[in-house]
Amino acid sequence: MANHEHISGSFADELEGVKNKLLEMGGLAEQQIKMAIEALNNDDKDVSKEVISRDDLVNELEVNIDEEASRIMALRQPAASDLRLVISVTKISTDLERIGDEAVKIARQVKILRQEPRSRTNYAEIKMIGERVSNMLRAALDAFTRLDPQAALGVKIEDKHVDDDFAAALDNMRVLMAEDASVIKSILCEIWVLKALERIGDHACNIAEQVIFLDKGIDVRHFSSAELRDLLAS
Amino acid sequence: MANHEHISGSFADELEGVKNKLLEMGGLAEQQIKMAIEALNNDDKDVSKEVISRDDLVNELEVNIDEEASRIMALRQPAASDLRLVISVTKISTDLERIGDEAVKIARQVKILRQEPRSRTNYAEIKMIGERVSNMLRAALDAFTRLDPQAALGVKIEDKHVDDDFAAALDNMRVLMAEDASVIKSILCEIWVLKALERIGDHACNIAEQVIFLDKGIDVRHFSSAELRDLLAS
Repeated sequence: MANHEHISGSFADELEGVKNKLLEMGGLAEQQIKMAIEALNNDDKDVSKEVISRDDLVNELEVNIDEEASRIMALRQPAASDLRLVISVTKISTDLERIGDEAVKIARQVKILRQEPRSRTNYAEIKMIGERVSNMLRAALDAFTRLDPQAALGVKIEDKHVDDDFAAALDNMRVLMAEDASVIKSILCEIWVLKALERIGDHACNIAEQVIFLDKGIDVRHFSSAELRDLLAS
Repeated sequence: MANHEHISGSFADELEGVKNKLLEMGGLAEQQIKMAIEALNNDDKDVSKEVISRDDLVNELEVNIDEEASRIMALRQPAASDLRLVISVTKISTDLERIGDEAVKIARQVKILRQEPRSRTNYAEIKMIGERVSNMLRAALDAFTRLDPQAALGVKIEDKHVDDDFAAALDNMRVLMAEDASVIKSILCEIWVLKALERIGDHACNIAEQVIFLDKGIDVRHFSSAELRDLLAS
């Protein structure tokens, strides 16, 4: 689309357009996580390759959204809540791109894990935490769509559970490695997968923080849970 | 500083001000990495605690820089290269904040490692990779100050070496764990430290990419090394 077409369209349409592109990117990131875990569960080389190759689509959307946001800032010079929206969109797109990177990291571990005997974990923790962080991402994107800071707070709270699950899973992995040195390589791969999922949870939290910023105009990135609850109750 | 003072100052001063604050934040992030590795080497609980408590300063600077950048965008409505600078500043501050988080993660491992016998690695790889990524961060910030895309490219190239060193270190760690199950816990801590350092290298790369964006106006986040070299040679 040429620049003049942008200028002739309505400002509201442009904002709506970049928001929709962000949600499209969010949907893609969700799919990438789902496919990466599926590839792991089914030892599926083809699906893992697909996740890796589809990362280009995620990256293109990020660049695209950032260009569009810059253009809106330069040409429309948005103020107040519109400016906040444009800034938030670029921040959220960075998080979605990183989520895509984490899905790729999971997919890359599939290649190594396929050559090792399946560990006794049978990926139980990975499936559970994978489910949790996928739900968090979905909830964060829904909160963005509906501009729902309470739902965003829910995502932040859920992340504490993910961190606990992650720590418990690591303890378990450590025991398995100590019991049988032959599984160290595959368990380390599983640890990298868990770490990637834990990071996805963090990125979902970042998105949730942007939703609160959009609604309240307050930067809550470094608020404690108690401070957040107080803010949203007020 | 009240808003009206900002408006009465010159636009160039405001841009310079936010740039300087970013460099201050960069210096703080560098110090945090240095102190975290020092705490590790010397089993120093006090220094590790200091790294953790100083993270608030890093976070405050990030919030501060973002607010200042938003204010400049809203009141000054910068165009072209000025707008790029303001956008880059907010992106770089996010990376610096994440670098601070990684330094904290290293400092937290010190607490666990202090209770374990020092492993045979004697942190050799950690020191080497820590040195490399600290230099990368310094180089990326210098490249930003001088707007030097060639130096920024150097940071990107250096990151390949870090990734190789990281992979080699992991192989070594795996062997040590297989040889002696009693060191699994401490080796895992060292792996988390290495992972944090590798991430710091990635963030230094992100900063370098912003320098190229600032100078060339092209988003190179997803360029290959060859594409980057071609761009800078042109």
